[in-house]
Amino acid sequence: MQYFPAALQELADRFARLPGIGGKTAQRLAFHVLELPLEEAEGFANAILAAKKEIHTCPVCQNLTDRAVCPICEDDMRDHSLICVVAEPRDVIAMERSREFNGVYHVLHGVISPLNHVTQEDIKIRELLQRVAAGQVREVIMATDPDVEGEATAMYISRLLRPMEIKVTRLAYGMPVGSQLEYTDEVTLSRALEGRQEI
Amino acid sequence: MQYFPAALQELADRFARLPGIGGKTAQRLAFHVLELPLEEAEGFANAILAAKKEIHTCPVCQNLTDRAVCPICEDDMRDHSLICVVAEPRDVIAMERSREFNGVYHVLHGVISPLNHVTQEDIKIRELLQRVAAGQVREVIMATDPDVEGEATAMYISRLLRPMEIKVTRLAYGMPVGSQLEYTDEVTLSRALEGRQEI
Repeated sequence: MQYFPAALQELADRFARLPGIGGKTAQRLAFHVLELPLEEAEGFANAILAAKKEIHTCPVCQNLTDRAVCPICEDDMRDHSLICVVAEPRDVIAMERSREFNGVYHVLHGVISPLNHVTQEDIKIRELLQRVAAGQVREVIMATDPDVEGEATAMYISRLLRPMEIKVTRLAYGMPVGSQLEYTDEVTLSRALEGRQEI
Repeated sequence: MQYFPAALQELADRFARLPGIGGKTAQRLAFHVLELPLEEAEGFANAILAAKKEIHTCPVCQNLTDRAVCPICEDDMRDHSLICVVAEPRDVIAMERSREFNGVYHVLHGVISPLNHVTQEDIKIRELLQRVAAGQVREVIMATDPDVEGEATAMYISRLLRPMEIKVTRLAYGMPVGSQLEYTDEVTLSRALEGRQEI
């Protein structure tokens, strides 16, 4: 590889560090970027910087936003006494696509996963408990993925919430078990929301 | 998608424009970049800009380089009377891996492809003819991909070179027909180089 220019190798290495991008694909992407018009390449670089600079977590629900408080938490038309707890920001988008939910969210940014060294301290459980403790919350819907780690996280959180005397529910198993929330179609997600059960 | 921050959507759109990256993958990559440490993200953005800024084509062989003339063209230990013609810069890397070739290269940056509106004017054929016309070239080895467009391009160029009274050869069909040079293993490529035939 001695005749590969350093800057090209560096770019290919950066691509290869992205999830799901192998060495060969990374090389192809680097060559592609070189062939882009200069404005396109600069636009790409700036999009990375702008995303990092402008986007942060909402102080209320922890979802990603470019505002002081995210549009969902700011929306007075939504039911702020109903909190849907999801693992990742992309799960909020999946829930919104179902058009069935009019409450607000809480994004954990992960699930408890001892195998991956993620403990209850590493995800946004404390922030959820503070929101509930502040009152005005009537119900918390657990909407983590219906797999082992998602279930365990839901059970763990529901146990912490039980003494607070609010309703804690779980999305119904309308979703195929072992699948991921992000890929669930809108209709299935609506069914799961309607049939939610108290835990 | 109204709750997707604009800067995140913009970044996902940029990823989706890369070859082989679909909408869902682009979204995942954008989320991943957001989770990177700031230095990592800035490093990525800078790698794109640096690659665009520092890398250009070698004025002699048209390969990509970050120097005035590429290291292969500058190397006095190589046989400058022997030119290997390839379609893309990545094909140079594949040839170099075979460790059998000690000549220099000429990168066409494409093949003649009427279906994709690529004519003989769009690839670096003129530059090749000028190099050969300048004298000192003994042999030109055509090493375009052994598919329809690669073959047609090799035939077209060999016809232009014939009046110049130099040897024009083609890589032997040691490579499986229909495959791509980039993915050919080193041993097969060595065989193809040894068994090259005059055209």
